[in-house]
Amino acid sequence: MKTIIPSDISALQLQQVMQTAIAPRPIALASTINAKGEVNLSPFSFFNMFSTVPPVVIISPSTRVRDNTTKHTLENLKEVPELVIGNVNFEIVQQVSLASTEYEKGVNEFIKSGLTMRPAELVKPPLIAESPVNFECKVMEIKSLGNLGGAGNLVIAEIFKIHINEKYLDEAGNLNQKKLDLVARLGSNFYSRNNESNIFEVPKPLVTKGIGYERLPEPIRKSDVFTGNDLGMLANIEILPTGSFSSEKEVHLLAQNYLKNNEIENAWKVLKSD
Amino acid sequence: MKTIIPSDISALQLQQVMQTAIAPRPIALASTINAKGEVNLSPFSFFNMFSTVPPVVIISPSTRVRDNTTKHTLENLKEVPELVIGNVNFEIVQQVSLASTEYEKGVNEFIKSGLTMRPAELVKPPLIAESPVNFECKVMEIKSLGNLGGAGNLVIAEIFKIHINEKYLDEAGNLNQKKLDLVARLGSNFYSRNNESNIFEVPKPLVTKGIGYERLPEPIRKSDVFTGNDLGMLANIEILPTGSFSSEKEVHLLAQNYLKNNEIENAWKVLKSD
Repeated sequence: MKTIIPSDISALQLQQVMQTAIAPRPIALASTINAKGEVNLSPFSFFNMFSTVPPVVIISPSTRVRDNTTKHTLENLKEVPELVIGNVNFEIVQQVSLASTEYEKGVNEFIKSGLTMRPAELVKPPLIAESPVNFECKVMEIKSLGNLGGAGNLVIAEIFKIHINEKYLDEAGNLNQKKLDLVARLGSNFYSRNNESNIFEVPKPLVTKGIGYERLPEPIRKSDVFTGNDLGMLANIEILPTGSFSSEKEVHLLAQNYLKNNEIENAWKVLKSD
Repeated sequence: MKTIIPSDISALQLQQVMQTAIAPRPIALASTINAKGEVNLSPFSFFNMFSTVPPVVIISPSTRVRDNTTKHTLENLKEVPELVIGNVNFEIVQQVSLASTEYEKGVNEFIKSGLTMRPAELVKPPLIAESPVNFECKVMEIKSLGNLGGAGNLVIAEIFKIHINEKYLDEAGNLNQKKLDLVARLGSNFYSRNNESNIFEVPKPLVTKGIGYERLPEPIRKSDVFTGNDLGMLANIEILPTGSFSSEKEVHLLAQNYLKNNEIENAWKVLKSD
């Protein structure tokens, strides 16, 4: 184990460690406006949803680690506490990256990035036509977390209207996760795509309560074949089958193959030795 | 465009739309302890970093949309305002899912999931031995966002110590993003893996200020060949080359091929028609 005390390393090093370990982060493309009516567009990966009722999101326009300067988004939100957040998919990632350029105050990054403004209905800043989903938000609170370069500024905002591009809906009218192909930020210059190539399913253990790892029969728990993930899947069964269990390597490999296909019942069936 | 007013749909429907659109979300595996010394382990995807100096993370143990009950994590944090957050990679995703089971109060999900407790150095809850990175945190503030089922509870916490499993370091001692293979949560039962199969690089436009989309020469900006991403890459050049530019489809396809390999200079070279 390598141990780090945050105050012992530089802010840039700390940022690098945190941004690599706390990833992938969803991207908010934030559209804001100042009192003069000048529009700003900028991406933020210090972003997430934190509540459904009421629907609340947070972005954090931090001061820059480099020189402790403030982002125009934060200045705008202090003047006009409303914003539109668009999500970001692979189709627009290069334009979104261009919008993160530090242009002078007053420069409209919609124009610079070639993304399209559309009037919002409840708030002053414009919608982003190319974002698959737009959220019209009003600021509940801005909370500064410090004074030094790299200090976050929590912008806690409530969602009042959601716009969805119908292109990303399935036949039942629900958002199609894989078709969205959302991109996320990781450390350094890394982004990730999220589509059918890397999305997988883990059924939620909400209805049933799995027996748990510690109640797995010893021949299974101590097997050299099974990984932690395999044992996690087996331990999610609600009632342990009665009888005794095989400790044969070949049987365990067979069960493991069932687990690869999410066939937990079949895995348990072959594991029974009587 | 499909438009939704959050208060017009059920909390479950709203949660589904938000969790699909605001994704992928990083996962915090939160280890907490109550006044009696009973340990709890539970995953949260309403989680992110929001500040580097000081290093601040937020998780939100929401009340359940289903029945407005509270999670044990939140109860523990009100008794002992310290937590360990471990990140989650593909190797442990099934065990982490098992830890999300709603076991009775006092049940230790480390035991149920087969994950291993290790003593922390500055806080009472244990580290998670299998997490690639562990953060020892102290709670700065708990902020409730509402009273109904689905209401978030912001747990704003500062990081005081970071532990990294050396297996995930590269030769220079830095965290290797692709080797980490972090998993994230999306809508429904979906997770995503983040490794070399889906991670890509976009150089940050920090040193240079790109000319911007609106200053691209017309034959290029109005081309039928180029996508928004192509134009975003071309507009990231600092100084527009002098001379005139081709509007030939074949030339544009050739330039597009260069862009696919991140060769922006070469793309501009072929686009020049004189």
